[in-house]
Amino acid sequence: MNFHTRKWIKPEDLNPNGTLFGGRLLEWIDEEAALYTIIQIENPRSVTKYMSEIDFRASAKKGDIIEIGLEATKFGTASVTLKCEVRNKMTRETIITIERIVMVGLDEEGKPQPHGKTEIEYVKNRLGASTE
Amino acid sequence: MNFHTRKWIKPEDLNPNGTLFGGRLLEWIDEEAALYTIIQIENPRSVTKYMSEIDFRASAKKGDIIEIGLEATKFGTASVTLKCEVRNKMTRETIITIERIVMVGLDEEGKPQPHGKTEIEYVKNRLGASTE
Amino acid sequence: MNFHTRKWIKPEDLNPNGTLFGGRLLEWIDEEAALYTIIQIENPRSVTKYMSEIDFRASAKKGDIIEIGLEATKFGTASVTLKCEVRNKMTRETIITIERIVMVGLDEEGKPQPHGKTEIEYVKNRLGASTE
Amino acid sequence: MNFHTRKWIKPEDLNPNGTLFGGRLLEWIDEEAALYTIIQIENPRSVTKYMSEIDFRASAKKGDIIEIGLEATKFGTASVTLKCEVRNKMTRETIITIERIVMVGLDEEGKPQPHGKTEIEYVKNRLGASTE
Amino acid sequence: MNFHTRKWIKPEDLNPNGTLFGGRLLEWIDEEAALYTIIQIENPRSVTKYMSEIDFRASAKKGDIIEIGLEATKFGTASVTLKCEVRNKMTRETIITIERIVMVGLDEEGKPQPHGKTEIEYVKNRLGASTE
Amino acid sequence: MNFHTRKWIKPEDLNPNGTLFGGRLLEWIDEEAALYTIIQIENPRSVTKYMSEIDFRASAKKGDIIEIGLEATKFGTASVTLKCEVRNKMTRETIITIERIVMVGLDEEGKPQPHGKTEIEYVKNRLGASTE
Repeated sequence: MNFHTRKWIKPEDLNPNGTLFGGRLLEWIDEEAALYTIIQIENPRSVTKYMSEIDFRASAKKGDIIEIGLEATKFGTASVTLKCEVRNKMTRETIITIERIVMVGLDEEGKPQPHGKTEIEYVKNRLGASTE
Repeated sequence: MNFHTRKWIKPEDLNPNGTLFGGRLLEWIDEEAALYTIIQIENPRSVTKYMSEIDFRASAKKGDIIEIGLEATKFGTASVTLKCEVRNKMTRETIITIERIVMVGLDEEGKPQPHGKTEIEYVKNRLGASTE
Repeated sequence: MNFHTRKWIKPEDLNPNGTLFGGRLLEWIDEEAALYTIIQIENPRSVTKYMSEIDFRASAKKGDIIEIGLEATKFGTASVTLKCEVRNKMTRETIITIERIVMVGLDEEGKPQPHGKTEIEYVKNRLGASTE
Repeated sequence: MNFHTRKWIKPEDLNPNGTLFGGRLLEWIDEEAALYTIIQIENPRSVTKYMSEIDFRASAKKGDIIEIGLEATKFGTASVTLKCEVRNKMTRETIITIERIVMVGLDEEGKPQPHGKTEIEYVKNRLGASTE
Repeated sequence: MNFHTRKWIKPEDLNPNGTLFGGRLLEWIDEEAALYTIIQIENPRSVTKYMSEIDFRASAKKGDIIEIGLEATKFGTASVTLKCEVRNKMTRETIITIERIVMVGLDEEGKPQPHGKTEIEYVKNRLGASTE
Repeated sequence: MNFHTRKWIKPEDLNPNGTLFGGRLLEWIDEEAALYTIIQIENPRSVTKYMSEIDFRASAKKGDIIEIGLEATKFGTASVTLKCEVRNKMTRETIITIERIVMVGLDEEGKPQPHGKTEIEYVKNRLGASTE
């Protein structure tokens, strides 16, 4: 799994209890899934279609740094399925995991558009090359 | 199900494709679930513990008005389980449904705190009285 | 009066004194008035034209839940006049009241557009039906 | 009247109709009134107590620059009354005027705290000196 | 140097250490430079091209009021060079200085567009007249 | 250079010209520099002290994905110097480069706190291990 985007928990990200607002975390994950997909299937009109259950295993506090990991696990005709893990950068504690996030690439009229990607391995190579 | 909070889709809520950014919607749902729970179990330290799968059935566009509905379906010792539906206020189209959102009330040390609520009916009555 | 939208006071909503930032509250009221009007007069181009005096009777603190109530009090040719009350959900304390907010529906060129609504009762019925 | 703070209307400040979101404008005015008061009465715990009626005379569009003007018109024991005008920087068109905004300085327990300012002229001089 | 726009440091502007988030300050400066330039060269498509080194000499804390000062120091064909200073409104302490910010006015195709301004003095007069 | 955090340009990140708002980009860089430093010198109270000149070589438009790269180039007693490059993820076009960003770790009283790191290689190894 590639852990790219990192976030620094600032006061504006907290709920009134002083811990990371769960809604903010979901917002970050959704954005990361979208841009990961756009890069993978090379379609800028990629949207979230489905998320499997979400277990909030730990929280985070002000000043913590978290990183969001994603991995493509399956390529459909117009979709790609991702696995997600968010963890604390320093402690390595897992904050959240989502087994399946299904993203779909759309055409200009908003209908699913085949992306022609079938080889996950190939994409891994491409990704590996692009990030280092 | 009670549909309370309503949102007006503004430019800042859109993804680059010009439709409602899914992450923003999840953020709104999480906030609504938190405040619904706080009112139900009378514990301001209520946090999201679990969400069951999320199916994005429709999107929304700039200027649309959506409303977020929640309903308590089960009361645990320190938790409450909610059912959620988000729909378009004008068309009544369902945008998203989440079968189970488990919220937990915590004590000051962050441990689950029993809320003593066992009667869903009672809470419904209380809610009904308070909102009309 | 119908109390719909509810807000959870988060750190990002506070002024430096640690109480609800008045400007944020006015922003929320204005959004709620706009979407209430859009639903009432069925015109998505509804804008705020006038607000009568605003008395800040109480504040709110981090973690409080407030609810915003609106009621149509008069229908003009292209306008609708609303009455607003914001109150603390738990204590029922009134935070703010605004006697008259005049909203106007515009046509595509930005000129007032008659909405054909003259019966407040009718709208009340429609609203009642749509929210329960 | 001193016109200080200026704002550049960005996409995030628009309502779905593509004009300046009125709620955002009210938020800006409230912030400006607070900081103007803090400087005038030298009390960082200054809050909005009252606003007289608000007439939205014109709107603004994306890319416009507006400037917010304030002037102290009366000093009470713990309060100061301001007059506000917001105008378009280029066209000089008036967007909004508010005849009276009453701000109150509080002590540490949240009660009105006398500020000892009685001379509006004096403050004008001080302000003049400080901004040029 | 003209000090116009003022900001009130709110919780949402803080880094996790509780001081003004430097990135927020840079965002404010960039916006102020853009709108100052738009007014000076009368071109709404003005963008930042270059900033000279930035020395963070002091920070600010919650509730502080800062003011952003800008001065045109040189007019190029399509550009204008600004000098910037941000200071604490009450203490007069300098928070940041930037010797040169080069802004460029673009035409509709995104290419530099001559603005015909060569007289800095003239602009100073115009500015002086417009703000008081 | 390690390119970690990626951003998806959304409507809220645009200036009125429809291109990436430079101030938003600077905000993102500053946040990334802070969290990179916190991880490197293991001090959560890390703040920006200095940035060398910034050349805006290209912009980005709605829907683009950018990635922010940082590399530690020098370790001082309490500081670390970073080099920064931001580029377009798809085209590899460089948007901005900053030769030197000096970050300083502070103690609880806000004074520089030695971090004991002298070996850049060592940190590179640690970073490499932590991100894959």
